Amino acid sequence: MKSDIEIAQGAKMKPIIEIAQQLGLGEEDLELYGKYKAKISPEVWDKIKGNKDGKLVLVTAINPTAAGEGKSTVTVGLGQAMDKIGKKVSICLREPSLGPVFGIKGGAAGGGYSQVVPMEDINLHFTGDMHAITATNNLLSAAIDNHIHQGNELSIDVRRVLWKRAMDVNDRALRQIVVGLGGKTNGMPREDNFLITVASEIMAILCLAKDLMDLKERLGRIIVAYDLKNNPVRARDLKIQGAMTLLLKDAIKPNLVQTLENVPAFIHGGPFANIAHGCNSIMATQYALKLSDYVITEAGFGADLGAEKFFNIKCRYGELKPNAVVLVATLRALKMHGGSAKDVLDKENVDTLKRGLNNLEKQIENIGKFGVPVVVAINSFLTDTQEEVKIVESRCKELGVEVALCKVWEKGGPGGIQLAEKLVDILNTKESDFKVLYDESLSIKAKIDIIVKEIYGGIGVEYTPRAEKAIRELGEQNLDGLPICMAKTQYSLSDDPHKLGRPQGFKVTVGDVRISAGAGFIVVLTGEIMTMPGLPKVPSAEKIDINEKGEILGLF
Amino acid sequence: MKSDIEIAQGAKMKPIIEIAQQLGLGEEDLELYGKYKAKISPEVWDKIKGNKDGKLVLVTAINPTAAGEGKSTVTVGLGQAMDKIGKKVSICLREPSLGPVFGIKGGAAGGGYSQVVPMEDINLHFTGDMHAITATNNLLSAAIDNHIHQGNELSIDVRRVLWKRAMDVNDRALRQIVVGLGGKTNGMPREDNFLITVASEIMAILCLAKDLMDLKERLGRIIVAYDLKNNPVRARDLKIQGAMTLLLKDAIKPNLVQTLENVPAFIHGGPFANIAHGCNSIMATQYALKLSDYVITEAGFGADLGAEKFFNIKCRYGELKPNAVVLVATLRALKMHGGSAKDVLDKENVDTLKRGLNNLEKQIENIGKFGVPVVVAINSFLTDTQEEVKIVESRCKELGVEVALCKVWEKGGPGGIQLAEKLVDILNTKESDFKVLYDESLSIKAKIDIIVKEIYGGIGVEYTPRAEKAIRELGEQNLDGLPICMAKTQYSLSDDPHKLGRPQGFKVTVGDVRISAGAGFIVVLTGEIMTMPGLPKVPSAEKIDINEKGEILGLF
Repeated sequence: MKSDIEIAQGAKMKPIIEIAQQLGLGEEDLELYGKYKAKISPEVWDKIKGNKDGKLVLVTAINPTAAGEGKSTVTVGLGQAMDKIGKKVSICLREPSLGPVFGIKGGAAGGGYSQVVPMEDINLHFTGDMHAITATNNLLSAAIDNHIHQGNELSIDVRRVLWKRAMDVNDRALRQIVVGLGGKTNGMPREDNFLITVASEIMAILCLAKDLMDLKERLGRIIVAYDLKNNPVRARDLKIQGAMTLLLKDAIKPNLVQTLENVPAFIHGGPFANIAHGCNSIMATQYALKLSDYVITEAGFGADLGAEKFFNIKCRYGELKPNAVVLVATLRALKMHGGSAKDVLDKENVDTLKRGLNNLEKQIENIGKFGVPVVVAINSFLTDTQEEVKIVESRCKELGVEVALCKVWEKGGPGGIQLAEKLVDILNTKESDFKVLYDESLSIKAKIDIIVKEIYGGIGVEYTPRAEKAIRELGEQNLDGLPICMAKTQYSLSDDPHKLGRPQGFKVTVGDVRISAGAGFIVVLTGEIMTMPGLPKVPSAEKIDINEKGEILGLF
Repeated sequence: MKSDIEIAQGAKMKPIIEIAQQLGLGEEDLELYGKYKAKISPEVWDKIKGNKDGKLVLVTAINPTAAGEGKSTVTVGLGQAMDKIGKKVSICLREPSLGPVFGIKGGAAGGGYSQVVPMEDINLHFTGDMHAITATNNLLSAAIDNHIHQGNELSIDVRRVLWKRAMDVNDRALRQIVVGLGGKTNGMPREDNFLITVASEIMAILCLAKDLMDLKERLGRIIVAYDLKNNPVRARDLKIQGAMTLLLKDAIKPNLVQTLENVPAFIHGGPFANIAHGCNSIMATQYALKLSDYVITEAGFGADLGAEKFFNIKCRYGELKPNAVVLVATLRALKMHGGSAKDVLDKENVDTLKRGLNNLEKQIENIGKFGVPVVVAINSFLTDTQEEVKIVESRCKELGVEVALCKVWEKGGPGGIQLAEKLVDILNTKESDFKVLYDESLSIKAKIDIIVKEIYGGIGVEYTPRAEKAIRELGEQNLDGLPICMAKTQYSLSDDPHKLGRPQGFKVTVGDVRISAGAGFIVVLTGEIMTMPGLPKVPSAEKIDINEKGEILGLF
């Protein structure tokens, strides 16, 4: 089979104006970025806000393993399949980050015959959203250091500046730095850190903002530091939220592209899935719902993190009512959950597969706790055997859950017809009774406890002294009434990446707790979270090239 | 009179497709960025490269003073005036930098009724060129630090990494930093600096590249560090020039916008005018020349720096043959050169004006040394008196130089008809005999000597020990055969900003010499050059806002 980039470059893209027409939009509703990318003009909202919402479908997965699940590929392929069976459908995905493209080979725009295009553009500068977020993040940093330098009227404690600089590059040397060196004219020396742009709170804010004014309000709320009396200092105290909003005036507009089979794709916003909530923007999802009968979207990592945060954070703030969940699993990953080593996954192994099904089972249970109907999608690999597929099917039948084999990577939309038909059947017959899992006004510990016990299946939570102190302080400052954003390993239901399957009897250890007051959630850290990746020994950048005809080589 | 932004927001812009049609381009030749901005597709070059070149006119100025000269305004207004008298004209300007917009109020897109639009976009993210340059600059930085971290096969001396990180923000705290702290996983600790993006060598390279392959070649040539044996280490040694070129594949395409009077404006590239050459891109100028009968462009600072570098660097590499020069002066600035204080410039003062004319006189002489005909434009202020104007006119007559009063700030194109007509007359009657001032194969000191004596009117050059050593090393490594890029104060013909008028008998002191091997010039530093600005006590960012209708407030 051809490589992803060969398939993408062979795509017969339609002009984006035609894709927009499929959604009932005219050229005047678009801001074009070349022929195949557009942003939706903000004026469109007034025209469509009275439309009935389409049905919202979340694609999530079992806990990922080194074998890969292909959640984005299934999302794109399912959208294409829905289109093939005559449904008016859009997909909603996150925007990929530029930095990692030059690290390890591989983009983030689906795969095989289920990709979004133009994939090189989407993986490079796209419509400039990432760069706008970087600039906004760093304008705030400059304003903080300038305030300190110019007299520090707010008495910012230079040892407690929480706001970090950002850059969309994999650069370990920027993880920990000292700025302001070289004497009085260069500001006040202090320790600082760079995040990769997708880890910036600005990204999370952009994705949770309802509109431009809500964006400004949230930007103003960001807690950038503590002062010498231990009070939070916010971005609005620096009078910088207006300028920050201006820098994001275009970034906030949803982007429209298409899949290989010309299905409309909204690709907008891409927050980290650990220290943030890992979903595309609320605005893009709302536009898609008003313009389509079905919207297929996805969330980062497995259902214990991605779906939980999609429901408890994104749906809470966006007042979204998801109608169904597609839970993606691969036989290879299930076998790893059952104990298989990575190098024997190509061989049939019924026993480990059966053992590994407990991870799928728990994730099905979890979706049920939110009141949303679920269908399992087996993302097919060429090495899967019929015997193995039957095992998953019969277990799902026992659980009363529909399951479909999905071959969208290999075949595009036609490979997902079975899944699309089962999904439509569920949407027509099973009513979603969506509810969030906890009341945000509960104490921080009570909320964490619910997530750990209900979703992860743990027996309790332990807190380090650092976490205890952070929770106490947030409580004292009345900053604790926000949803929780768990930062946990994606590989296990527990906080130990090596405990695969369905671990039992474990406790989760919370190491630290932080607030993202602009985004509007409390970040709960379990274990080390890397917010600035590094490049490998031989970065893919060394193979990447462009020739005199403008052809791109070595990108994926 | 209205403010710049009020005038700009009231502009009757034509769709950029119509502006392109004025140049003979169709929609298929453009990559649209919304309705009013476009990039020219690279395929266009093959269609137009056989066209006859239009006439190239450089707008430059006397040495700037605190009173301002309005070079960009005259460039835009002259373009509009040429259009008014029926000429097929384009203008070529530099792209403004985003960072300074949030520092001190004021954009960089002309003024009054002679502006380029959409001016907010041009001053903010525009078509993303600055962000692409930032990303490219910092990918190279990441590659350098990653190489060191991963074993340092090239034996890069961490004390002699020349390449600096870049960001498009005014942020003094980033001027001098230490990176790579926090232990082994975070790379090797070393000192580093951030430049503002327009000061990055990538910007100069983009502006001097003839095409995509020349760009790649130049990027590969960048000297990023010295190794432990004192040999230069280049970007190509890190195998990173292909990925860097890919990041710039769109940035290299010229941008097309329009003036308030719908004249085509190519705004592309904006290198620093001190450590770089301060002109828009060669590619944009070449496209404009093939698509118009007249091209009006400008260069940074006064003619001693801007025009000298335009001729000796840009025209040399671009094989451009300028046909005429417009030398801009204001009576206010001439009075400052004659000794007036800033607060009495509004009053008539014939004596100081007469004294200050020697600056204009020297700049006229200098243009003559390049063999290019010159016309003087008096950029009119409402406080100018008739008596004063006559003094300038009669001195120009004595010198055999045409002069025209220019009211384009107040009146737009109609205010520049006199200038346009005189310019056309010169273009029709005086043949340009353009030549560069020196052979690039001369020694570094010989080239500096020519510039200082011929252009600045100095009597000699002194070198600090540091500069002597740098020149010796570049010679030993056969890296000295490049044009010179002088970094000198813009306020004086000498290297002392306080010596106004036409200083005599001075020597210039060279403090350091560096190579920009990718851009292809030797940077000669006289005095301190600031490559990362800071924010003022009350940054304009505090006043900038955007309201719920998307209206921008406080920007200019």
